[in-house]
Amino acid sequence: MKAEIITIGDEILLGQVVDTNSTWIAQQLSSLQIHVKQITSITDTHNHILSSLKEASERADLIICTGGLGPTKDDVTKNVAAVYFNTALVQNDSVLLHVENIFQKINKNKSMPVSNISQAAVLACCEVLFNDWGTAPGMWIEKDGKIYVFLPGVPFEMKKLITHRVLPRLSQYVMTEKFVYRHLLVIGIGESHLAEKIEKIENAFSDHVKLAFLPKIGQVRLRLSLTGDNLSLLNQEADLLQNELINCIGPAVIATRDVSFEEVIINEFKLNQCTLATAESCTGGNIAKQITEISGASQVFIGSIVAYANKVKEQLLNVDKSTLERYGAVSEETVIEMAKGVKASLGTTYAIATSGIAGPTGGSIDKPVGSVWIAVIGKKQVITKHFQFTDDRLLNIERATISALLLLWNLFLQEKGD
Amino acid sequence: MKAEIITIGDEILLGQVVDTNSTWIAQQLSSLQIHVKQITSITDTHNHILSSLKEASERADLIICTGGLGPTKDDVTKNVAAVYFNTALVQNDSVLLHVENIFQKINKNKSMPVSNISQAAVLACCEVLFNDWGTAPGMWIEKDGKIYVFLPGVPFEMKKLITHRVLPRLSQYVMTEKFVYRHLLVIGIGESHLAEKIEKIENAFSDHVKLAFLPKIGQVRLRLSLTGDNLSLLNQEADLLQNELINCIGPAVIATRDVSFEEVIINEFKLNQCTLATAESCTGGNIAKQITEISGASQVFIGSIVAYANKVKEQLLNVDKSTLERYGAVSEETVIEMAKGVKASLGTTYAIATSGIAGPTGGSIDKPVGSVWIAVIGKKQVITKHFQFTDDRLLNIERATISALLLLWNLFLQEKGD
Repeated sequence: MKAEIITIGDEILLGQVVDTNSTWIAQQLSSLQIHVKQITSITDTHNHILSSLKEASERADLIICTGGLGPTKDDVTKNVAAVYFNTALVQNDSVLLHVENIFQKINKNKSMPVSNISQAAVLACCEVLFNDWGTAPGMWIEKDGKIYVFLPGVPFEMKKLITHRVLPRLSQYVMTEKFVYRHLLVIGIGESHLAEKIEKIENAFSDHVKLAFLPKIGQVRLRLSLTGDNLSLLNQEADLLQNELINCIGPAVIATRDVSFEEVIINEFKLNQCTLATAESCTGGNIAKQITEISGASQVFIGSIVAYANKVKEQLLNVDKSTLERYGAVSEETVIEMAKGVKASLGTTYAIATSGIAGPTGGSIDKPVGSVWIAVIGKKQVITKHFQFTDDRLLNIERATISALLLLWNLFLQEKGD
Repeated sequence: MKAEIITIGDEILLGQVVDTNSTWIAQQLSSLQIHVKQITSITDTHNHILSSLKEASERADLIICTGGLGPTKDDVTKNVAAVYFNTALVQNDSVLLHVENIFQKINKNKSMPVSNISQAAVLACCEVLFNDWGTAPGMWIEKDGKIYVFLPGVPFEMKKLITHRVLPRLSQYVMTEKFVYRHLLVIGIGESHLAEKIEKIENAFSDHVKLAFLPKIGQVRLRLSLTGDNLSLLNQEADLLQNELINCIGPAVIATRDVSFEEVIINEFKLNQCTLATAESCTGGNIAKQITEISGASQVFIGSIVAYANKVKEQLLNVDKSTLERYGAVSEETVIEMAKGVKASLGTTYAIATSGIAGPTGGSIDKPVGSVWIAVIGKKQVITKHFQFTDDRLLNIERATISALLLLWNLFLQEKGD
């Protein structure tokens, strides 16, 4: 089954909102062997919605539209859909009751705005996807062999409706074309060298096998995808090819599932009963945040001291006042003391420290914007490294974060091997 | 000028990568009065790329394609473009020299993989957009009155090429249709009530004026957009309408530019010489990270103690052992002591503390997953609030973060008024 996602609303087109909805929907569909072939973000104008529905129906079997179902005037999706399906909007009584209940719960003494009544209007030809988590109902329509699903754009409601209303319905369809994926997370080899290394294996792939390279700073994800009609044969073949790649690439493969680098670190630290703390200046808590987004992090991650001001570096991390005065906050000497300080204070086996000038202001000739020192301390050693990044604040924070985790990983492997 | 963005590559369609490139490009174009009308993410297959280029050229004047310019086999954009423009790929010597230089700089003793030579192949009909920041050059092609721009998908390189190569060229075009935007950030009024409140103003809008509601947890952004051909008249009208909305909505409007809530907090704290620290358990550093992403945060934000383990709560935040034993880490008593602890330790005017069960595991009957306590302490008061969120870890972290900032804002306003 081929799917297409249409997101409706100017906010994505103006660059005010990042389209994380489509990413999430694509992940869910992929688990049901439904392949998203196109994601289209369009303006919330009548003609654009109408032509996009038509074009999508020529390419896909399943069309999922999000956005434009709210109570305000810029929400026009339902009206356009009524034209597209040549049907009317009718009031659904149980949805109306639900909307009224939600409203009364939140606003005990206020009367419901009239605009909210329109939330209960649904396409006459649809099956209502009841929205227990908000006011705008979803709609499921089947027409000319195609499935259309309309969902609100609010991420939380959309996710609940996909999970509880859409996926159970879709899972009843038998997919003729099957997809099988295998993943490899490779650390410390550049994209083109990796491609060269596995060239012979890749050249021998049949037409139904595809290999994608997804490079990021310091890492490359490889995604092997196989299509066909026999799932068990595809799985066998995928396992063989994945093993061939693992043997060829060697220890730079640090994961054979689609997991993040942070997850690999957490799991390995858990297995080896190691713990971690961070002392963050320029990364401002981002390393801690990345680590603690992984469920189960609490078994490994003890805590962090985000020492933005120098006095916090002195007070909580025990950095010597004279070190700060002599070498400055962004220096090898300071990050070493920060790392030692947080390790001692939180009693961990490993600790990371970062200090730098994230920018775009605050640089000097000696220490330009993007200058970052990182220290990692382990069971026996301290390693440090200086980086000169760019003038982009968010990018510098991101690069410092991944660089720190790569240094941590290297020291961990080294000490594990000792 | 109407623009369309095409992103090429399966990673977005499989939900492995969020499309932040398009968001960023749309922002840049919008500043030049170029309106993105559609963003299309497609598979990296020959026919799909070809038909998308054709369809986009029927809708837009400017087509920006990202992705598929790398050195590996899954990068096919250049070959398809050669077919589309009915031209050949030719080797560009200065690009080749540049690629070789970059390679030698990184890999001193290795020879360059042959695949990298293909990076220097460009469309014969193009103007090369020289990539000083990576190996894949951008390309600019004008054909039949349309502009096509091809860029690598690596965000850093794409951004540099847009900024230094594409925008300067585009800024030379005179845009006949002008766009003017005004923004309002509104806190503490729900979307439908806000719509009701400003209904009369909205109903009186002419056809060239549009109002969009962008709701998020606890906040609604309003975007007023006006189109026409006279920029100065549009600006006058936009200012008038914006003022009308501000007067109607009242003090719930906390910003009249397109800024984030975090930025408003930083600016107001700066103006009022207030400082901030956080003590984070379930948010794991995310509040600190959100705040420190704003340039200039260092004047307000002193630091954070991410107290993931209980012993850190005791040791660094001075939470009483008996409080933890009696009420547990997720309790009103604990967050109050955490907030007091970090405020005292870091000497700030305000402090936030969070403790909760982010999930998906770790819940109990008394304290289910999604149960979060937040405390905010100011000059005179401590306020606390309990939240019961969902079973989604990342969503819980996000909601706890925004809820904490809203509580902080309320206390700040209250104490400012005292």
